[in-house]
Amino acid sequence: MSLTVVGSMAFDALETPFGKTDKIVGGAATYISLAASYFVKPVNVVSVVGGDFDQDHIQLMHQRDISTEGVQVKENEKSFFWSGRYFNDMNSRETLVTELNVLGDFDPIIPQSYQGCDYLMLGNLAPQVQKTVIERLNERPKLVVMDTMNFWMDIAMEDLKETIALVDVLSINDEEARQLSGEYSLVKAAKVIMAMGPRYLIIKKGEHGALLFSEDKVFFAPALPLEEVFDPTGAGDTFAGGFIGYLASTGDTSFGNMKRAVIYGSALASFCVEKFGTERLKNLTQDEIENRVQQFVNLVQFDAVLQ
Amino acid sequence: MSLTVVGSMAFDALETPFGKTDKIVGGAATYISLAASYFVKPVNVVSVVGGDFDQDHIQLMHQRDISTEGVQVKENEKSFFWSGRYFNDMNSRETLVTELNVLGDFDPIIPQSYQGCDYLMLGNLAPQVQKTVIERLNERPKLVVMDTMNFWMDIAMEDLKETIALVDVLSINDEEARQLSGEYSLVKAAKVIMAMGPRYLIIKKGEHGALLFSEDKVFFAPALPLEEVFDPTGAGDTFAGGFIGYLASTGDTSFGNMKRAVIYGSALASFCVEKFGTERLKNLTQDEIENRVQQFVNLVQFDAVLQ
Repeated sequence: MSLTVVGSMAFDALETPFGKTDKIVGGAATYISLAASYFVKPVNVVSVVGGDFDQDHIQLMHQRDISTEGVQVKENEKSFFWSGRYFNDMNSRETLVTELNVLGDFDPIIPQSYQGCDYLMLGNLAPQVQKTVIERLNERPKLVVMDTMNFWMDIAMEDLKETIALVDVLSINDEEARQLSGEYSLVKAAKVIMAMGPRYLIIKKGEHGALLFSEDKVFFAPALPLEEVFDPTGAGDTFAGGFIGYLASTGDTSFGNMKRAVIYGSALASFCVEKFGTERLKNLTQDEIENRVQQFVNLVQFDAVLQ
Repeated sequence: MSLTVVGSMAFDALETPFGKTDKIVGGAATYISLAASYFVKPVNVVSVVGGDFDQDHIQLMHQRDISTEGVQVKENEKSFFWSGRYFNDMNSRETLVTELNVLGDFDPIIPQSYQGCDYLMLGNLAPQVQKTVIERLNERPKLVVMDTMNFWMDIAMEDLKETIALVDVLSINDEEARQLSGEYSLVKAAKVIMAMGPRYLIIKKGEHGALLFSEDKVFFAPALPLEEVFDPTGAGDTFAGGFIGYLASTGDTSFGNMKRAVIYGSALASFCVEKFGTERLKNLTQDEIENRVQQFVNLVQFDAVLQ
């Protein structure tokens, strides 16, 4: 099954309690496509970068069968840049610098070779751009998954709701679910949000795991308790990449398989946070991934023999 | 297997976003013994109340085969009283009034009929009092479970550590685990705390579930996603009561059975928060409990068929 991923490819400069980086490669499409590449090939990326983007990273993407045919290169412009600092609890952060650069007027182009894709992952971007991508596909994919963030709820709620109405799965965090729905209880929030269109809702709770809702069903995947969260940047995107990559590789969008996909996404995210940026996602082995999934099984498994 | 429970029996006055109560019956031993009574009979309570305590509640305890032989009644004094207000998120609260009253000089008496108990639950109390109870038992119980709170870490850390060194299972919340260990990561905190003595550590995370640690093993039990948390008072004690009640009823302290016990504790706690105070714990049926446990199974269950 073919997968198309839309999102930013960017530079990040990060500061965590464990250290800081110069500009390193980041961006939603970067994390999503790397994570998905462990499940499905090729992964087709739609994005835009400046002439300054890291060519070694493009090479790495090609080595992992990630197509960059849909990545526009604006030679005389600069790539999107974000700089941020994480606080000690790693759950909160402050933005130091945001330079939209090429992302400011991003007009996504879908190469002919991407048409007919079965799975579409809309990484966090302006909701109008996400909607444009759906409109520019000749056929609606089998499954459309969308990520977004509170920023768009603050400045473009109507655009956001129009796009949300078009997707099958929405993936947001707990605070965003509360803001989008106006409900504090996540169970109530899920009902409100699914009434906006998506058949499935994933609510990410960072170190507290993730909830998958559909109709009246709910599934909970824990996050793996880790000794150290080194750098949380990209964890949510990596989760999304593992999730849709697993779905695309199996071609099964039943609720049972979605549960497995949430576990695979959580497993990939647990690798992501072990090192700065994309470092840990460059050379995973299938054994490492399957061992990690087994850790999730062990973490929650119990025999429910009643008295 | 016989169970002895030590802790406060008290009056609480509560204010939540959903309403407020006059003085209603509360206290750690109240919640623990009610929850445990669904699994094991009799439950032997060691506590102290004033002449003002609610006789209807004592009757209820007797109806549920909870022995109050070890509950001292100080006719001319008043019962422990706590008043608090919960904020909108229900995870934080402020204390409005604390009147120790009879609890101020509580000297626990162990009736002869309680001697030889197999399981001992030390509800939150001054650690020196908890230690006295252990010392006054002629034989060490098969399993000693202890709850405590940050208050004792602030004012009696050395006493607390002496008592912790004597127990098998310590049950605290995430912030308390961090304070007690000086480690932010709960995985690191667990190692530090288990090195203080307990073979098992339960870290309660409220709406985010609970972790059970032993040696290098870890188990995670989610909290049930609820539409409404009406009143969180007593949820931690109810969890503890369900946990030790289930263990005492099965007489099995293997890690596998401890996992089940954590699920039973979580199930009982999920009932507790549905109404004010002990209201929801007075008349549960075995069917209700087993259906609730099944909801936990459904919540985390997935088939980990690898690709």
